[in-house]
Amino acid sequence: MSLTVDLNADMGESFGAWQMGDDAAMLGIVTSANVACGFHAGDHEVMAKTLRLAKAAGVAVGAHPGFADLQGFGRRPIPGFTADQLASLVAAQIGAMIGIARLVDVELRHVKLHGALSNMAMVDRAMADACLGAAARVLPGAIQFVLPGTALEDAALALRAPIAREIFADRGYAPDGKLLPRSHPDAMLHDPAVIVPRILRILDTGTIIAHDGTLIPVKPDTICLHGDEPHAVRNAEHLRHALEQAGVRVAAPERP
Amino acid sequence: MSLTVDLNADMGESFGAWQMGDDAAMLGIVTSANVACGFHAGDHEVMAKTLRLAKAAGVAVGAHPGFADLQGFGRRPIPGFTADQLASLVAAQIGAMIGIARLVDVELRHVKLHGALSNMAMVDRAMADACLGAAARVLPGAIQFVLPGTALEDAALALRAPIAREIFADRGYAPDGKLLPRSHPDAMLHDPAVIVPRILRILDTGTIIAHDGTLIPVKPDTICLHGDEPHAVRNAEHLRHALEQAGVRVAAPERP
Amino acid sequence: MSLTVDLNADMGESFGAWQMGDDAAMLGIVTSANVACGFHAGDHEVMAKTLRLAKAAGVAVGAHPGFADLQGFGRRPIPGFTADQLASLVAAQIGAMIGIARLVDVELRHVKLHGALSNMAMVDRAMADACLGAAARVLPGAIQFVLPGTALEDAALALRAPIAREIFADRGYAPDGKLLPRSHPDAMLHDPAVIVPRILRILDTGTIIAHDGTLIPVKPDTICLHGDEPHAVRNAEHLRHALEQAGVRVAAPERP
Amino acid sequence: MSLTVDLNADMGESFGAWQMGDDAAMLGIVTSANVACGFHAGDHEVMAKTLRLAKAAGVAVGAHPGFADLQGFGRRPIPGFTADQLASLVAAQIGAMIGIARLVDVELRHVKLHGALSNMAMVDRAMADACLGAAARVLPGAIQFVLPGTALEDAALALRAPIAREIFADRGYAPDGKLLPRSHPDAMLHDPAVIVPRILRILDTGTIIAHDGTLIPVKPDTICLHGDEPHAVRNAEHLRHALEQAGVRVAAPERP
Repeated sequence: MSLTVDLNADMGESFGAWQMGDDAAMLGIVTSANVACGFHAGDHEVMAKTLRLAKAAGVAVGAHPGFADLQGFGRRPIPGFTADQLASLVAAQIGAMIGIARLVDVELRHVKLHGALSNMAMVDRAMADACLGAAARVLPGAIQFVLPGTALEDAALALRAPIAREIFADRGYAPDGKLLPRSHPDAMLHDPAVIVPRILRILDTGTIIAHDGTLIPVKPDTICLHGDEPHAVRNAEHLRHALEQAGVRVAAPERP
Repeated sequence: MSLTVDLNADMGESFGAWQMGDDAAMLGIVTSANVACGFHAGDHEVMAKTLRLAKAAGVAVGAHPGFADLQGFGRRPIPGFTADQLASLVAAQIGAMIGIARLVDVELRHVKLHGALSNMAMVDRAMADACLGAAARVLPGAIQFVLPGTALEDAALALRAPIAREIFADRGYAPDGKLLPRSHPDAMLHDPAVIVPRILRILDTGTIIAHDGTLIPVKPDTICLHGDEPHAVRNAEHLRHALEQAGVRVAAPERP
Repeated sequence: MSLTVDLNADMGESFGAWQMGDDAAMLGIVTSANVACGFHAGDHEVMAKTLRLAKAAGVAVGAHPGFADLQGFGRRPIPGFTADQLASLVAAQIGAMIGIARLVDVELRHVKLHGALSNMAMVDRAMADACLGAAARVLPGAIQFVLPGTALEDAALALRAPIAREIFADRGYAPDGKLLPRSHPDAMLHDPAVIVPRILRILDTGTIIAHDGTLIPVKPDTICLHGDEPHAVRNAEHLRHALEQAGVRVAAPERP
Repeated sequence: MSLTVDLNADMGESFGAWQMGDDAAMLGIVTSANVACGFHAGDHEVMAKTLRLAKAAGVAVGAHPGFADLQGFGRRPIPGFTADQLASLVAAQIGAMIGIARLVDVELRHVKLHGALSNMAMVDRAMADACLGAAARVLPGAIQFVLPGTALEDAALALRAPIAREIFADRGYAPDGKLLPRSHPDAMLHDPAVIVPRILRILDTGTIIAHDGTLIPVKPDTICLHGDEPHAVRNAEHLRHALEQAGVRVAAPERP
């Protein structure tokens, strides 16, 4: 294979005295860090610490805005926001990260929506337009991380924004290209012996095999890893090693 | 008089369903708005609304960061922060305002610290350096609004940052140039018949008369008005009218 | 008429430096105060101040729990909570009010859900059971304020809890007994010349006239007034005066 | 020895998605749990879960109120509160815990202040009076956990409240009976081979050996363990086992 692919993971999800994930270890593996902006996780101190760690590790940094819901970790859907409300929600968070990035002297490269905000915007074009439109105004030229086949991809295309299409290393897919809901028995993949060959096959063939055998065409630019689960770091290391062994170049996407 | 002076007021201090001050009216009077950044007051929606109003009114906008203390409105001193913690506190807030300013397409012109953060940094050079240093990194060229004779002025000078020296229209002064504490009987001025000639005299003579008669030399660039007190709007209108009658040009300070 | 009816209003909705409503004035008019518990509005200081004012005014006090959503004032529906989550949400809030009530030495008499939590529980029996069940465990014998014809009434009946059935002085009704949605042109009544005779007629005849003329049978124990709208205090005074003139006794409901 | 002593630890310090400490393991060792009330740590869901776990483990539960400072975990001193503000701060938190305790059907047995609120009240009698006075009003008969020789002990004595005097298993002491500041090289004890004989000796002789050899008389009712440090659980198990081997009865203090 003569491919290049990015490995991304959510980071900076600690808050105050509470730790989450092993950012230091994951920063040795991934090439892009999606950093929480203080509304659903992270705080100004965690943001600064995370950007300093990422800078030292040479990992590309992006803003990872979510709903303003600390206790719910941004995972609870909160319906009913207007486009203006969503735009300011996203703009304030990316802006806060811009502030910290300037403090730490690092460039912000991408934007990826978090949790329920992302899930809702994937299937609601007006939400996707409001959120990604705000992201493109606040951080012109930022690479939008989107799931292919969703309203987020459509919104990014309409904005003519740089796009990185994302697949999930550890999630099963429905025949329509959507992630299987977490309640589905094949939703979560845990075994590196399954995950690694699956990813290599996706990169090699340009298709994902859905849980029912359907082939879904996809050209992923970035692979999402999870840092907050048991064995997350070990599995991520394993995958990165296997990719490199297979001749895949692992690197953050370039801004045009 | 052939002077130019700025009139500034704190704005965007509403939060969610709670209103504070009459921003729309004050924006018809002042030339600079210090806008709360969501940590001690304001939220992303209020920030966007305030910047849209200020833009429509042609009023210069600045970021007004404070302690992360919504219930205390940023007025409670919280000691013990390190320089790094203060820097990220200020950077995240100015950054959030940058995000909203880009969304609304308006330029951020100045930075002014709020409440207890300002009061503490006025007498603590290390705090002043941390806060204004972060402001200068996050918003290079921003005008620093400072009280003359304080550690904030010293920090701004050391940073070679643009400076606007500020006086308070409605506060009494101690002989050392500090504001009288609010507990002092002469601390607060309420009567426009006192406030207006006092300000004109300060601009004319370059001196403030302290409560004991001492003359304090000062060349103010900006006058702070308060929008959240009874008669605030009426008093502010009165002062602006009197300044213009006296031939003083009322305008926001220019960025160099 | 030889009726007794309670007048209730939401109170203690200030937060930190932000004021809302004119609690002192409304406490001179109503007989029951629904006091916010710090999750969607209010804070521990506001709670204590409000209970002291209510005690001095001889007004019965109840807890008014809502979603933990300060910026949204508890008005945003947040779906997806389990029964256990709802129970602890309500229990912690009523408990906090118990703490303040003991501090101030006043009895808590009733519970009324706030905003989106109430709206959702009105049409979702499982939510109603979880919320009112928790209320009954935490404050045994508390009077449950409910809208007749809703899942909240059903839940209160199933709990064999004391019930006060509520009507809204300033809202139009649909033929099924529900409030007209705020988007409906007849949803909000503003004119005391309409509101007062309407309430007297409801008390006199035991029926509400829906916006299409349908007669809805109802025996209200308490009438909800709103304190945060223009003329709220004046309208409330007007209604109380008219009720007393008509021989209606205005008093808080008795706990059995 | 024919002594009885309590082992207590802070618990319920998780928040939303963030875990802290290994409560389940510590509940198998301690006899009293000091449960965070949602202001500096914990939330209504964590509170309910913690009380259910404690009830199942037969561990006595108490409320552990702190400053309203989630990001600072209640460890930052926030000066300047009035007695009324402190009283409502403490009352709302103990009240919230009362609400959850009634939901879960468990008795609240004690109150222990947390972090900076405790540290400040130890040396400020007015603060101690305000906090413990509120605790005694909200939870009459609750056992006050206090450090001997502090303003908290004085306040509890003045209230004629039940008292449990506390020593710290893993902290060094100054000759005046105060804890050595954390900056002192002997402040923290980590080695069970030191901690266990030290505690046994204190119980046996009724004296603590200060770091300079001074003997401080003390009759501890409860020993504070820490659950959030490496080896915390192992050290706690070790101590409990050694106490029981030495014939000490390990049990929560009785309410009179």
